[in-house]
Amino acid sequence: MYTKDFLFDFTKRVFMKMGCSEADSVIIADVFLAAELRGHASHGMIRIKDYHELWKAGRINVNPQIKVVHETPSTAVVDGDNAVGMITARRSIEIAIEKARSAGTGWVAACNSNHFGIAGYYAMMALSHDMTGICLTNANPLVSPTFSVSRMMGTNPIAVAIPAGKQPPLVADFATTPIARGKLAVAEKKGEKVPFGFVQDKLGNPSDDPSILKSGGSMLTLGGDRLHGSHKGYCLSSLVDIFSAVFSGANFGPFVPPSVAYLPLLDKKVGKGTGHFFGAMRIDAFQPAEVFRAKMDEWIETFRSATPAQGQEKVLIPGDPEREAEQRIMAEGISLVPAIEKDLEEVAKSLGIPFR
Amino acid sequence: MYTKDFLFDFTKRVFMKMGCSEADSVIIADVFLAAELRGHASHGMIRIKDYHELWKAGRINVNPQIKVVHETPSTAVVDGDNAVGMITARRSIEIAIEKARSAGTGWVAACNSNHFGIAGYYAMMALSHDMTGICLTNANPLVSPTFSVSRMMGTNPIAVAIPAGKQPPLVADFATTPIARGKLAVAEKKGEKVPFGFVQDKLGNPSDDPSILKSGGSMLTLGGDRLHGSHKGYCLSSLVDIFSAVFSGANFGPFVPPSVAYLPLLDKKVGKGTGHFFGAMRIDAFQPAEVFRAKMDEWIETFRSATPAQGQEKVLIPGDPEREAEQRIMAEGISLVPAIEKDLEEVAKSLGIPFR
Repeated sequence: MYTKDFLFDFTKRVFMKMGCSEADSVIIADVFLAAELRGHASHGMIRIKDYHELWKAGRINVNPQIKVVHETPSTAVVDGDNAVGMITARRSIEIAIEKARSAGTGWVAACNSNHFGIAGYYAMMALSHDMTGICLTNANPLVSPTFSVSRMMGTNPIAVAIPAGKQPPLVADFATTPIARGKLAVAEKKGEKVPFGFVQDKLGNPSDDPSILKSGGSMLTLGGDRLHGSHKGYCLSSLVDIFSAVFSGANFGPFVPPSVAYLPLLDKKVGKGTGHFFGAMRIDAFQPAEVFRAKMDEWIETFRSATPAQGQEKVLIPGDPEREAEQRIMAEGISLVPAIEKDLEEVAKSLGIPFR
Repeated sequence: MYTKDFLFDFTKRVFMKMGCSEADSVIIADVFLAAELRGHASHGMIRIKDYHELWKAGRINVNPQIKVVHETPSTAVVDGDNAVGMITARRSIEIAIEKARSAGTGWVAACNSNHFGIAGYYAMMALSHDMTGICLTNANPLVSPTFSVSRMMGTNPIAVAIPAGKQPPLVADFATTPIARGKLAVAEKKGEKVPFGFVQDKLGNPSDDPSILKSGGSMLTLGGDRLHGSHKGYCLSSLVDIFSAVFSGANFGPFVPPSVAYLPLLDKKVGKGTGHFFGAMRIDAFQPAEVFRAKMDEWIETFRSATPAQGQEKVLIPGDPEREAEQRIMAEGISLVPAIEKDLEEVAKSLGIPFR
């Protein structure tokens, strides 16, 4: 078991050794640890090695000049200068928050960025400003549109954080696929099948094989198949892609660059890097702040008191599972499997810093 | 078969006879016919009778004073004064478009409204202004959150329309449930079962009975069950509800008033009427307009040329099915089943106007 502080300091030192400023390294470490604490280990320490490999391959810029390249009173486009995604993302949501202060809402599309960790982190940054926060990103292509076998989209997440009053905020943070990519890898390592509705083979037939991506298969959109609404999941994934890439000038769909160094950069580019999209909306741009908070409390209390289905204990509010995970993991510590510990030791050795 | 013009004129006269202004009646008829032409007959002429019954029961205001009750440079809250939903909605997206002209984007939450027809209609209004349009609405509760058997949410649709250049615009317009309510009614009338994943019984067990809502059952969110991501559908449905109702001051979740007169008004209110949410975003608030249009064309062409799955003819872009329906129905005419013709004859007779 590791404490949050230990892994935070280690992560910070890793990125400082790679040449990031201390301020940037603190931001990056904060996002990594937020993923671990919120129970999304798939976006936590397991990815340190990927970032290190990208850096070794010269594929991320540790001294970025992040710039606003276009703006209106409520919008901006940010060029991330190929920064570590966390740095582009954090600056972008800050600009959205600044815009919202004067215009009521602020909307920032970012191009020329990279993988940024968990989307919920940036949406939640708006909360302390009494704003609703929104964050979308595209990602490297693994997912097929309905009726297709081509990998055209990432697991393109949507995160929305809405302030409440006495209740904790509502935080929705979800991929627009039935499952995250990482869950396929886990099932594959355990030698297990996955339920139908997650993946298809290279011809578009239903599959329960978690390794099917290696033989030309692809992931399915939320809904799973046309009958169960996969075309709605396809709408969602494609909207996230367009807001993240067409609005910003980033690469869209099948042209999003890989977030791991073992996959080569694509020959064809249709824009700059990976794209994100951020929003911040002052709650008092719609209702007096106290009225808004009280009504969100009432909404949350109403939904939390819904009748559980037979065999279920309680009805959850978006954000409850992550908040419960955070309380538990802060108390118990963060556990890392030996394979990740080995990766971190190797990264540490390569950079000349201690891990343990 | 009926022509669009015939049914448009009839619908306009129905609403004028109920006391709506000619200008309002034209708007209402336009939305009804857009639903028929786009192949969403569930939101077309079949609902004329429901609106007439609501009017007879004194539950909609045909002479509304629609007001902006709160605003910032990029936002407004509209009180619909219990208008027919189309009138509130059309005015609200117009205000969003006006806001976007000066602020880059405009966001309008509307309360004290009623059922407004198809969400896509309002999102598409932004297109001719070179803006992306967004429209959300809550609806009367039929849908249970994940792990619950309580009917807490409507089929809460999301509509987004994005301009392109040479290509037709991308128009996504979908309920946040696997299917629309109307499809259950159709299956029930035909004596057919529905696939598992659409509805559950009153205890939360999977069901294939399309009439299960009558015995305490409920509809499921997109994803169907927890394993296949119903919690993501629940996030979407609840976000639509909160943006439509908490942002606007309307009734949320289980308190949304029924859109049919045969269901009584609820005793408890937590706001005013039904709620909607609208957005308009200038494309040149993010990219030079020509760049945006060319990149959307490239996005659409890329996705349209994805490889079809075995047995599928082609890959669709959101909005393709409705556009194809519109071409076909404009050519062939609008067919109404005898039960709807009978309803329309009764409404016509009651209002003293001819139907045929």
